[in-house]
Amino acid sequence: MVAAVTLADIRRAAERIDGAVMQTPCLPSQTLSAIAGCELWLKFENLQFTASFKERGALNKLLWLREQGEVAGVVAMSAGNHAQGVAYHAARLAIPATIVMPAGTPMTKIVRTRDHGATVIVAGDDLDDAFALARQQAEAHGHAFIHPYDDPQVIAGQGTLGLEIAASVPTADFVVVPIGGGGLISGIALAVRALMPNARIIGVQSRTYPSMVQALAEAPAVTANAMTIAEGIAVKSAGRLTRRIVADLVDEVLLVEEASMERAVALLQSVEKTVVEGAGAAALALILEQPARFAGRRVVAPLTGGNIDPRMFAGVIMRDLVRQGQLARLKVPMPDHPGALAKLATILGNEGANIVDVEHGRLSLALNPKGVELNIVVQLHGCEHGEAVLGALSAEGFVPQFLPMT
Amino acid sequence: MVAAVTLADIRRAAERIDGAVMQTPCLPSQTLSAIAGCELWLKFENLQFTASFKERGALNKLLWLREQGEVAGVVAMSAGNHAQGVAYHAARLAIPATIVMPAGTPMTKIVRTRDHGATVIVAGDDLDDAFALARQQAEAHGHAFIHPYDDPQVIAGQGTLGLEIAASVPTADFVVVPIGGGGLISGIALAVRALMPNARIIGVQSRTYPSMVQALAEAPAVTANAMTIAEGIAVKSAGRLTRRIVADLVDEVLLVEEASMERAVALLQSVEKTVVEGAGAAALALILEQPARFAGRRVVAPLTGGNIDPRMFAGVIMRDLVRQGQLARLKVPMPDHPGALAKLATILGNEGANIVDVEHGRLSLALNPKGVELNIVVQLHGCEHGEAVLGALSAEGFVPQFLPMT
Repeated sequence: MVAAVTLADIRRAAERIDGAVMQTPCLPSQTLSAIAGCELWLKFENLQFTASFKERGALNKLLWLREQGEVAGVVAMSAGNHAQGVAYHAARLAIPATIVMPAGTPMTKIVRTRDHGATVIVAGDDLDDAFALARQQAEAHGHAFIHPYDDPQVIAGQGTLGLEIAASVPTADFVVVPIGGGGLISGIALAVRALMPNARIIGVQSRTYPSMVQALAEAPAVTANAMTIAEGIAVKSAGRLTRRIVADLVDEVLLVEEASMERAVALLQSVEKTVVEGAGAAALALILEQPARFAGRRVVAPLTGGNIDPRMFAGVIMRDLVRQGQLARLKVPMPDHPGALAKLATILGNEGANIVDVEHGRLSLALNPKGVELNIVVQLHGCEHGEAVLGALSAEGFVPQFLPMT
Repeated sequence: MVAAVTLADIRRAAERIDGAVMQTPCLPSQTLSAIAGCELWLKFENLQFTASFKERGALNKLLWLREQGEVAGVVAMSAGNHAQGVAYHAARLAIPATIVMPAGTPMTKIVRTRDHGATVIVAGDDLDDAFALARQQAEAHGHAFIHPYDDPQVIAGQGTLGLEIAASVPTADFVVVPIGGGGLISGIALAVRALMPNARIIGVQSRTYPSMVQALAEAPAVTANAMTIAEGIAVKSAGRLTRRIVADLVDEVLLVEEASMERAVALLQSVEKTVVEGAGAAALALILEQPARFAGRRVVAPLTGGNIDPRMFAGVIMRDLVRQGQLARLKVPMPDHPGALAKLATILGNEGANIVDVEHGRLSLALNPKGVELNIVVQLHGCEHGEAVLGALSAEGFVPQFLPMT
């Protein structure tokens, strides 16, 4: 195979984007290292101006295009971070940019891309449709198409993240990288394989979108539209160029559970005080899900992006309290008469359980018609506290039960 | 007045704590600068290991004590960040630490302080009680008491943050600092006044706990127990030493609204991808609340801490969507028969309004007994989208109304 992208290309990319894209911090995490049982380093790509690594590849491509001659305009297709990366840097360079976003793209992402100065066209029923439209658009206007991952200059740009990892943690044993289309891991693998020959490079995909795993196995691409917390890596078919690079240079591509990514997002919030999107937490999620694989080793995980929907982020934080036994739902049948709730609420208050929500149910045939079933959400200190609360209620004649929240 | 703390003390503190406390990043924020109308620099003290600036003063005091001779142990009183700062660094230095926390301290804070290796005593009905108990504890055991703010070595330690501001943004026009007891602003003011004589130093307190403002006016201290999002600066009486330093060196102490701090926490999440507690966002909140005061100027705001209760943080994120018109509550009276909700939900779906919650009300006497009143929480793109949704529902014969959520 003739190398489509080389270390020299990545070094040139680093020179091109220098000063306009942040060399993000790469820091050891004491607490997460203790939790994961390895020496964990995090690279905060969520602190880029548009909150993801995508600026690296987008800007390198834009500057490379300009080196080739006059650039009348560029077109990209993306519902997410690539859109913002292209829009922001094209505007900075005064290159007209058109972004095609598939129908159903959240309005906030459309508005944010427009705010960066791009022309946004919302069209196409899905990413494939929108892709085709974007290519037509580019051809019709003589504009350059900037592919989100399957492009040597984009890959070289993403590879600059690998140069920075090699500079910050040259003795890393593992570099773990989320894979959507494969642009980021291709660039990182090219840099890391050259500069840190002993490091193992591990790719991570969501189990819901295992497109690179399937491509490597020469199995058919993903066809289902599964729900995932990690939109940023929900890519149905791996790139042609990227799958070759991954096959050559990446040691393994592993799948991670949705729940692990959710837990990783919550931990990054509570421990690292940083906001990371689902795809951006995939590498940490894998490390937490398969700790034996990394035990005692020096591991680098880029936090690739921070653009998480605020309502989903708030939901992830609340659901993490459920996971830790700090929010629980109690079912308590009781007589439907004055003072009954007062008695129950007094016991909960004395036990230090904060009542978050109360619902009255009277339709269950398991109840006596003179009874009512309370569904109470309480905030607790954790599972032991929950047992103590059950005990206190039982001692006063209630028959409480924690309802499963899984 | 004889200077209780000098620039030389702060420089010595910086030498003492060097390497064990992070020199946190101090970065310009492009987006928040545009929103605030000034050149805004943020200093990320929420990235300290225990997620607040309090480590600086705590560690300086611990190391200073050790310079004075054998340290049998230390005692501190705190329900928050000072507790963690003392506990963590005392454990690192193998100095036994006892932390008195008032009754009612959230269990998570007790557990976290214990996890750092301190002995925690939960006692005292409020901070004043706990204070007295902690001093007794220190005296009884011959341990040193580490005051959270009214101590020259603690102030000198906090002042190291001022040295770092002077190094990062030497030409700042304003340095805006949250005030609880006044330790942080005292230290910063000593450093900044000496190194950046032209910078104006502005203190910020929550309007709910204006203790320093009252101390400067020689008015009685705060007595009410108001609710505040900013526990970290909910201090009922300013320090004696700190109030003298503030009176001498700080240009103004201003009050900020709770709602502004909440908005600042939400903006830091969505724009900066960082997790900041209420008190930690107070400086940014003031800048957003009184933009004219800072218009066009170079302004530094430390984000002093990141220890926000996860449930409150999730609530702040959701409430920000309400503020932006992206979550709204619709009241729609309709006939109580099959298909009615289907029709309503279809219109909402076609308009791109996501239904988050539905409640049926049948007890309002304003309703016909054959009617039902739907209370629907919808996710919208913003206020204009809300108007469009109202229009679409009205066109189909519904009489919808947005309910105020303020």
